Formats: sequence, structure tokens, C-alpha cells
Amino acid sequence: MRIAIGIEYIGTQYHGWQLQEPGKNIPTIQQHIDESLSKIADSSVQTISAGRTDKGVHATGQVAHFDTEVERPLHSWVQGTNRYLPDDIAITWAKVVDHEFHARFSATARRYEYYIINRPTRSPQWHQRATWHYHPLDIEAMQVAAQHLIGEHDFNAYRASECQAKTSVREVIHLNINKQQDMIKLDIKANAFLHHMVRNIVGVLLAIGEGKESPDWSKEVLESKDRSLGGVTAKPEGLYLAEVSYLDLITPHPASDDVFGRPLPQGER
Amino acid sequence: MRIAIGIEYIGTQYHGWQLQEPGKNIPTIQQHIDESLSKIADSSVQTISAGRTDKGVHATGQVAHFDTEVERPLHSWVQGTNRYLPDDIAITWAKVVDHEFHARFSATARRYEYYIINRPTRSPQWHQRATWHYHPLDIEAMQVAAQHLIGEHDFNAYRASECQAKTSVREVIHLNINKQQDMIKLDIKANAFLHHMVRNIVGVLLAIGEGKESPDWSKEVLESKDRSLGGVTAKPEGLYLAEVSYLDLITPHPASDDVFGRPLPQGER
Repeated sequence: MRIAIGIEYIGTQYHGWQLQEPGKNIPTIQQHIDESLSKIADSSVQTISAGRTDKGVHATGQVAHFDTEVERPLHSWVQGTNRYLPDDIAITWAKVVDHEFHARFSATARRYEYYIINRPTRSPQWHQRATWHYHPLDIEAMQVAAQHLIGEHDFNAYRASECQAKTSVREVIHLNINKQQDMIKLDIKANAFLHHMVRNIVGVLLAIGEGKESPDWSKEVLESKDRSLGGVTAKPEGLYLAEVSYLDLITPHPASDDVFGRPLPQGER
Repeated sequence: MRIAIGIEYIGTQYHGWQLQEPGKNIPTIQQHIDESLSKIADSSVQTISAGRTDKGVHATGQVAHFDTEVERPLHSWVQGTNRYLPDDIAITWAKVVDHEFHARFSATARRYEYYIINRPTRSPQWHQRATWHYHPLDIEAMQVAAQHLIGEHDFNAYRASECQAKTSVREVIHLNINKQQDMIKLDIKANAFLHHMVRNIVGVLLAIGEGKESPDWSKEVLESKDRSLGGVTAKPEGLYLAEVSYLDLITPHPASDDVFGRPLPQGER
């Protein structure tokens, strides 16, 4: 039986999603998920996730699948497993899927959110949960720059040097930037992402928002296909894997425009 | 010289705002604030805050004042002090005020926010930052119940037994309840609050939201003036001191209806 699960986590304490070599004692999210599911299954379970988030990156809508011989009610895979997981990791849903389903290869699109707190003082609430940017950012310049990246392009300039993808052509479905009070939110959806693609895009947009580069620089970088031109890779702490889309599985996620107020830090203005 | 400051904190690690007896070694927010300001002043500084938040309660808009003989640029009181403060406490602004200003006694109103995450599974992101409520809540019943509490009333039934206020008459200026996805937000503003008043109101509203009591029960409890009738005191972890109002000081805060999307956990639905 193949089961798909939704996973939410705060990645601060972990070296990313991916299981590390045994014996190295490097805590990862997958390690906790696999160990906890194995306790419910009473046998070894190994998950495959939609995306291998980096160290310090969070998720509200990670998806994974695993195969198991044992029969358990779905709430055991959710609530039961959560009893074994630490407070910063939780399974949010479980569904039986057919054997063709693959959390990574069946995914038709991914959506990430990136949060930047843009004010003079650091924020206790957003510490390690958003990227603090001291210099005022020009949101309109960033929005113009973002438009150049929408659609199908060769994103070679926006990938990490260690990226192993065969082709660097990806289709960005949307890239929205909004600001409310001191918080800037980037919402980006693509059919798939290259390694560090979101963080490199954010790095370029930050340089444009600071006025170091013109709004058309994002296009120049794109067309150069030159990795050395792209800006600094933005910090992991502002990044959230928000949603993974499948043709034949409705993941229980909010619509991308569904937002809600949270206790907002109050900057000097 | 008298200086007013804005303070933001996550209260999880602290035994509330108020300084404890020396030698007891109980960490409080005031202790960190006073010690850090004293380093900037190079002499002893003691603050007085608008509200003594309880253990585990957070703040986005706490206000305090202190007197000092030393002259420092305002950014030293803010950025300088923040260098000495832990990551979960920060000063967000500082202003010189006249000697009649008093953070507590000059305040004309306070506003609190209370967050309830209402879904079957716990949320890593809202762990200790919102109250997790497993049972589905009837938001409309809670909204009806909230209406009974708006205006000037004797809130004796909604205060803690250890509350030392001479009168229990308070004026609730607004009490709004909204739900978006799995998150319920209560926003309450009053001229002043009794000890545990917000958490006792939330406790009564939760019982109504669960269907254990009718929407008019909030009024019955109010009119009884009987503390033993009020429900359980809701947990501290969902509570945020969001704003303090003064006649002669504009505190740099967002308007109460200013909300912004944050990475939302995704429940089963």
C-alpha cells in the first residue's frame, strides 16, 4: 500500500529534509519522519518527499509518500505519528494513493513563499522565520523585476553551482510580491525548481529593491545564463515550501491568495 | 529625561514581564530590558510598563518608560540596547516624552490579540505562539457571544481571584472575532483590563464555540458578576499585547485592521 502524507515543519533545528549518512548523527526532518512512521508501522518505513528543503528552510505544505505492508487507520499515520515527532515537525494529513503516485515525480507544480521583514530593528517573532532586511526596499522595483521571470525560461543563471538537474529550463507560473506594514511576501509557483532557484531569485530581487541594480537587471541575469552574475543566495530562514500540486491528488492546502493576519511586529516608522 | 520605548517579545521563555525578587533567578522580560538599558546608560535604569503580561504571553506593542540623567541618541536606546537583548526580546522605537507621561497611568486604551489554531493536528509553526484547539469551533456563536461584552460593564465575573483592581467596571471598545482557514483571531480593545480578563473571556467564548454553552451564556456570566461562573482561563500562549494608546503619544503601531498573511499551516479538511 502506498500512502501520501502532508508535513509541516520549522526547519531551524535541522540540516534540511534529506536523511544523512547513518552514524553521522546529523538531525534531519526525514530522519524524524521515517523513525516515527516506523514506530507506527512496527517495521522500517522510508519516505520520499516532493522537495529536499535545505538547512533552515521551513514547510507548510511538504508532501511525501511511503510504502507499507501494514494496515493502519489513516489517523494513526497522522495523530499517532505526531506523538513521536518533536514539536517543530508534524504530519497534517494522510491519504491512500495508487502505486503510480510518486511525491516527487508526479508533482506538476510547487509553490514557495519567502518572507522578508523590512524594518530598522530585528523582530523577535520572526527570528529565524523570516529574513530581516534593514535597508528599505523598493517594492515596486522588485515587482517590475519579478515580471521578467514569469514564463518558461532557461534559469541557468539562477541555480546553484552544485545543481544536478539535466536541463535548467523551468516555467514560472506566478511570482507575486506584496508588502503589508513591514513584511514583504514573495509567492512563487513553478512547474519545478532548480537547486537554490528561489533563494537566488530573492537575492537578485533584494539587490534591485535596495537600488543597487535597475529593475531590468533580473532579465539581464536571466538572459546571461551565467551563474556568476546572479546575486547572493538569500538566507534560508525566510523560505517556506507552501504547496505541491498533483494531477490526481488534492493536497489539503489553502489557495495561494488566502492570507491571514498574524501578530505583526511593530517597527519604527 | 523621560523616555518611552516600544517592546516586542515572544514570552515563552519568561515568567512574564514583571521583575521578580532579586536573588530568585527567575528570568523575566523586564529584567532583560532593565539590564540592557542600564548597560547603554552606564547606570541603573528601571522601566515601568503599560501592562504586566503573564508568563508565556507575548507582545507586539508593549510600551514602557524610564528616567535617565544621561544623554544618548535615540538609536542607542533602540539598536544599542537590542545588541544586549536575547533574540526573543527587542526594543522597536524610543521617544523622548515629558515628565507627566506614564506608560501605565497615561494609557487610555489597550488592545490584545488572541490566536486559536482550530484543526485536528498540532501546528509546528504556531507551537507556543497560538492556542491549539482540536474540537471544531462555531465562529458565529462566538461572534454573537462577543457582542454581549462590548461597552461599559462590571467585569467582575471575568477577573482572576487575585485581581487587585479597586473597581471591576471596564469599557470594551471592540471585540472582533475572525476566522481564516484554520486560524481564529480575537481582537479586543478596552480602556483597561482586569487581571486575566482577556483569557477568561476567551475561556467563556471557547465553551460557547464548542457548543457546551449557548451564545447568551457570556451575558449570563457577565450579569452574575460571579467569578466562579466564568469558564476556564484560556492558555497564555495565544495572547499578544498588541497596542497601547495615549492621548499625547503616537505609538508606532499598525491599525487594528491591518493584517498580513504569514505562512499558514495546512490542516486536514
